Amino acid sequence: MTLLYFLDLLGTAAFAASGAWAGIRRDMDLFGVMVLGLVTATGGGTLRDLLLGDTPPFILQNETYLYLSIAVSLAVFFFHRRIGFLQHPLLYFDAVGLGTFVVIGTSKALAFNIGFLGSVLLGVMTATAGGMLRDILSSRVPLILRKEIYASACLAGAALLYVLHQTPLPHNLSLLAGALAVVALRLMAIRFNWSLPRAGT
Amino acid sequence: MTLLYFLDLLGTAAFAASGAWAGIRRDMDLFGVMVLGLVTATGGGTLRDLLLGDTPPFILQNETYLYLSIAVSLAVFFFHRRIGFLQHPLLYFDAVGLGTFVVIGTSKALAFNIGFLGSVLLGVMTATAGGMLRDILSSRVPLILRKEIYASACLAGAALLYVLHQTPLPHNLSLLAGALAVVALRLMAIRFNWSLPRAGT
Amino acid sequence: MTLLYFLDLLGTAAFAASGAWAGIRRDMDLFGVMVLGLVTATGGGTLRDLLLGDTPPFILQNETYLYLSIAVSLAVFFFHRRIGFLQHPLLYFDAVGLGTFVVIGTSKALAFNIGFLGSVLLGVMTATAGGMLRDILSSRVPLILRKEIYASACLAGAALLYVLHQTPLPHNLSLLAGALAVVALRLMAIRFNWSLPRAGT
Repeated sequence: MTLLYFLDLLGTAAFAASGAWAGIRRDMDLFGVMVLGLVTATGGGTLRDLLLGDTPPFILQNETYLYLSIAVSLAVFFFHRRIGFLQHPLLYFDAVGLGTFVVIGTSKALAFNIGFLGSVLLGVMTATAGGMLRDILSSRVPLILRKEIYASACLAGAALLYVLHQTPLPHNLSLLAGALAVVALRLMAIRFNWSLPRAGT
Repeated sequence: MTLLYFLDLLGTAAFAASGAWAGIRRDMDLFGVMVLGLVTATGGGTLRDLLLGDTPPFILQNETYLYLSIAVSLAVFFFHRRIGFLQHPLLYFDAVGLGTFVVIGTSKALAFNIGFLGSVLLGVMTATAGGMLRDILSSRVPLILRKEIYASACLAGAALLYVLHQTPLPHNLSLLAGALAVVALRLMAIRFNWSLPRAGT
Repeated sequence: MTLLYFLDLLGTAAFAASGAWAGIRRDMDLFGVMVLGLVTATGGGTLRDLLLGDTPPFILQNETYLYLSIAVSLAVFFFHRRIGFLQHPLLYFDAVGLGTFVVIGTSKALAFNIGFLGSVLLGVMTATAGGMLRDILSSRVPLILRKEIYASACLAGAALLYVLHQTPLPHNLSLLAGALAVVALRLMAIRFNWSLPRAGT
C-alpha cells in the first residue's frame, strides 16, 4: 500500500528530527545526535519485531529507514539554527507519524494472530517506545509517562483498528480510521492542552 | 502445575502493584502508572523469552498476565489512598512472586538446555529485570544494584534448583525447594536488614 | 580463528573490568558490580544476536564469556585498591577489545546477509551498546553520546571491513585491517584528545 509506506517514511523523518533536536538540546556530539535520531525513529518498530520474533527487524530488511533517519539527523545537526522555524510544523508531521506507526504496529500484530490487548500493546509500543528510549538515553523520565495525552491517542486508535478488523470493513479503511483517530486525538490534545489525571499523593 | 500458575499470577499482581505505586510516587499520569505496573510485572519474563528465542513471549501467548497487570495498576491508581495499608503485606506477596519467578525462569532455561551459569542468570533475570526496567524508566539507578539482598536470594534459589535438577529428585520438589529458598532468604533479609558488602572507594 | 577468539576474551575481560570499576565508583554493592561488569562486557553482542535472531545469544551458547566476566568483576570488586595501577593499561586492552568486537559484529552481520548500513550498525553496536547499558543502569547519559571519538573509530573500522569484504582480499586480512583501524583511531583519539563536533545551541 503505497500511501501507507509514504506516511511511514514521513513519520520516520519527523521522529528522527525530534530525536536529533533532543540530542542537540542535551549537548550531545555528532554521534550522539545520530543515535538519538535513529533510536527515536526506529526503536519502537524494532522492539515490536523482536517481540514478534520477526528477525532481523524491519530496519535491517529495508535499509531505507536507516538512511532516512541518519540523513535527517545530520541535516538537523548541521542546519538546526536555520531550520528552527520547522519545529512547530514538525508537531503535525509527528502526529501523522504517530497515527501511521500505531496502525502499522497493530496490523502487524493482527497478522501474527496476537490477541486484543497484545495487539493494542504492540501498536502503542511501535509509536511510543522510540521516544521512551530517546528519553532513557538522555537520562530523563520518559515525557510520555508524565504529562502527555500522546499515549491515549495511540491506545484509542489501536483499539479501534482491532475492533474494525473483526468487522467485514476492508482492511485499508480500518487502517485509515485507526490512523485518523490517533491524529485527530493528538491534534486536539495539542490544541486544547489535554492531559491525563494523576493520582496525587 | 496448577499451584505454580496460581503463585505466578499472585507474584504478577504483587509486582504490578509495586510498579504502579512507584509510578504514583514519581508523579506519573494514568498511562505512566500502567506502563510501570506492566513493565515491573512482565519485563523480566519477556526479556528471558527474547533471550531464549521463545517468541512471541509469554505475555503475548497468554494475555491473562496483561489483563491482570493492568487491572492491578488501575486499582492502585484509583484507590491508592484507601489501600495504603496493603503496602506492608505486599512485601510478603512480593517475596512469593520473587521465588516463583526465579524457579519458572530457571526451569524454562533448563528445558532449553542452557548451562549452569546461563540458567541461573535467566532465573535471576526473570525475577529482577522488571524492577530494573521500572527504575530505569523512573530515571533512577536500579535499587537492586545498590542496597538489596534481593538478588542474592534469587541467585541462591536458582543455583539450588539447577543442582537439584541434576539429581533424581522429582522436578516439582526441586521447584518447591528453589522457591522456598528464595522466599526464606528474602524474608530473613527484610527481618534482619541484611545487605551485601560494597567495595568502598 | 584462534587469535580472534583470544582477542575476544581479552576484550571481554577489559570491558568487564571497566564496567565493574564504574559500579564501584557509583557505590554499588557486590551484585551491582557483577551486573555492571557483565552487562558492559556482553550487552553489545547479546543485543546484536537478538537483532539477528540468532538465539540463544552467544553468552548462552558458550558460557566462557559469563564465567570470565564474573571472575573479572569479582577480582575488581575485592582487589580494586591493590590493582588501581591497572586502570591506565586497561585503556589499551579496552581499545583492543573495541576493535575485536567491531569486526566480530560486522562480520557476523555479513554472514547473515545484512546490508551496508545495517552491518556497520551491528558492528558499532557490538562494541558500544554494552557501555551504553552500563551508563543507563548508572542513570547517566551514556558517555559515548557526549564526548568521545570512541564511536567514530568503530564506524570507520566497520565500514572498512564491509568494503574490504566486497574485494577478493582474504577474510582474515579484512578482519585484521578493520580491527587495526579501530585500535589505531582509538589510540590516536586518546593521545591527541580528539572529540567530535557539537551543534552548539
